[in-house]
Amino acid sequence: MPTVRLQKISTKAPKGFSKDKTKQKTLLMLEEISELQNLLYAESKQAILVVIQGMDASGKDGLIRDVFGSMNPQGVQVESFKAPTPKELSHDFLWRIHLHAPAKGMIQVFNRSHYEDILVTRVHKWCDDALALKRMKAINDFEELLQAHNQTRILKFYLHISPEEQQIRLQERLADKTKQWKYNEKDFEEAKLWKEYMAAYEACFNTCNKLPWHIIPSDQNWYKEYVVAEILLNTLKSMKMRFPGLKK
Amino acid sequence: MPTVRLQKISTKAPKGFSKDKTKQKTLLMLEEISELQNLLYAESKQAILVVIQGMDASGKDGLIRDVFGSMNPQGVQVESFKAPTPKELSHDFLWRIHLHAPAKGMIQVFNRSHYEDILVTRVHKWCDDALALKRMKAINDFEELLQAHNQTRILKFYLHISPEEQQIRLQERLADKTKQWKYNEKDFEEAKLWKEYMAAYEACFNTCNKLPWHIIPSDQNWYKEYVVAEILLNTLKSMKMRFPGLKK
Repeated sequence: MPTVRLQKISTKAPKGFSKDKTKQKTLLMLEEISELQNLLYAESKQAILVVIQGMDASGKDGLIRDVFGSMNPQGVQVESFKAPTPKELSHDFLWRIHLHAPAKGMIQVFNRSHYEDILVTRVHKWCDDALALKRMKAINDFEELLQAHNQTRILKFYLHISPEEQQIRLQERLADKTKQWKYNEKDFEEAKLWKEYMAAYEACFNTCNKLPWHIIPSDQNWYKEYVVAEILLNTLKSMKMRFPGLKK
Repeated sequence: MPTVRLQKISTKAPKGFSKDKTKQKTLLMLEEISELQNLLYAESKQAILVVIQGMDASGKDGLIRDVFGSMNPQGVQVESFKAPTPKELSHDFLWRIHLHAPAKGMIQVFNRSHYEDILVTRVHKWCDDALALKRMKAINDFEELLQAHNQTRILKFYLHISPEEQQIRLQERLADKTKQWKYNEKDFEEAKLWKEYMAAYEACFNTCNKLPWHIIPSDQNWYKEYVVAEILLNTLKSMKMRFPGLKK
């Protein structure tokens, strides 16, 4: 597996992609996805776990709304992982995560995830290199468990934006009354740690890669949604699902 | 509060409702609902609990897909309550329900609910009249708790179909390969207990009515969706929500 170097990966759509045509293609894919999600739910033999990571304002919420919002909510669950509570901290770091692993038939979306335990924690030195390595091993083992013992496909998406695009979006949050609730006063402080975050993400991508990460160019939301929808659709298509027929 | 007599309530749309126009109105309402749900989530001071009950094949799943599927899945959770597990049975009947009460900012949908403990259980005599009355009291208290202590609006919908329409839909499930997975061999047996179910439902509506039930004519899906969307929209509008602005 080639080493990931984020700086060398574009945050924008490749040249030649038309916004309007791409959006139309995405809509068509979402219809197919919705059909296949119904089949996944009906069959109830396999599951999908979608892990979404990215810097502040990289568009995680919007992705969830626009791609996963097109499916039957009965078969899709979203869990947003915030700073752990005291009770959660009194367990191993995967305890609160395991609780939300998808049941067969379900699509589970993680808005942030167990990966924060080797990202924000590492940037702030709450987790040293040795502990980070131990956690990475545990994460690999955990994902293998979900795959091997509950037929779970795991899709890991990193929403890749440029620091310039992040600044624009954070300013927007400050200025727009309907977006201010998303703004956190620490956001600009955290943004200054860009290099440290990129280093932590790269270490993660290069170590927790038994299941490789999808690095999604995310400066343009329409392109981000297109790429994620395509990966999701191809995954669903590859799962060889069938309607189960009458119960015996 | 007038006594509910289900036989006297139509299961069909009133005369004069055009299917196409009604569907268009519903779509417009769903857009408004989606906007207001974003505001509910942003404000995070109030919650909504939607309880959906109805006979087999009354269209509960479809309602969830078509009305609640239009919202951001991050702010909507669906819980389908099946027969309780041994662990759940070792607790009071509201224990597993309370776990899924909506957090502030959220819309929680119950596909079946704590009401099964005074419905299917009563029809099959697993719960006698005295116990049913005790449970009804507990349910009233529980709903008051959610209202008074977590600013929760509770919307209770009964999807009202005719026994003839149910037979048609159950036959469809048997015949259609993509629907067979929903068919349960006991469905036709249960359908024979129609009268007993109606009696149990009426007792429920006439006792657990501190928050009155909405009886939704559901023989036509387009009308059912219209009525539910309208109630949901009016509820959201009445909640006097505001974007919270910057955190202090």
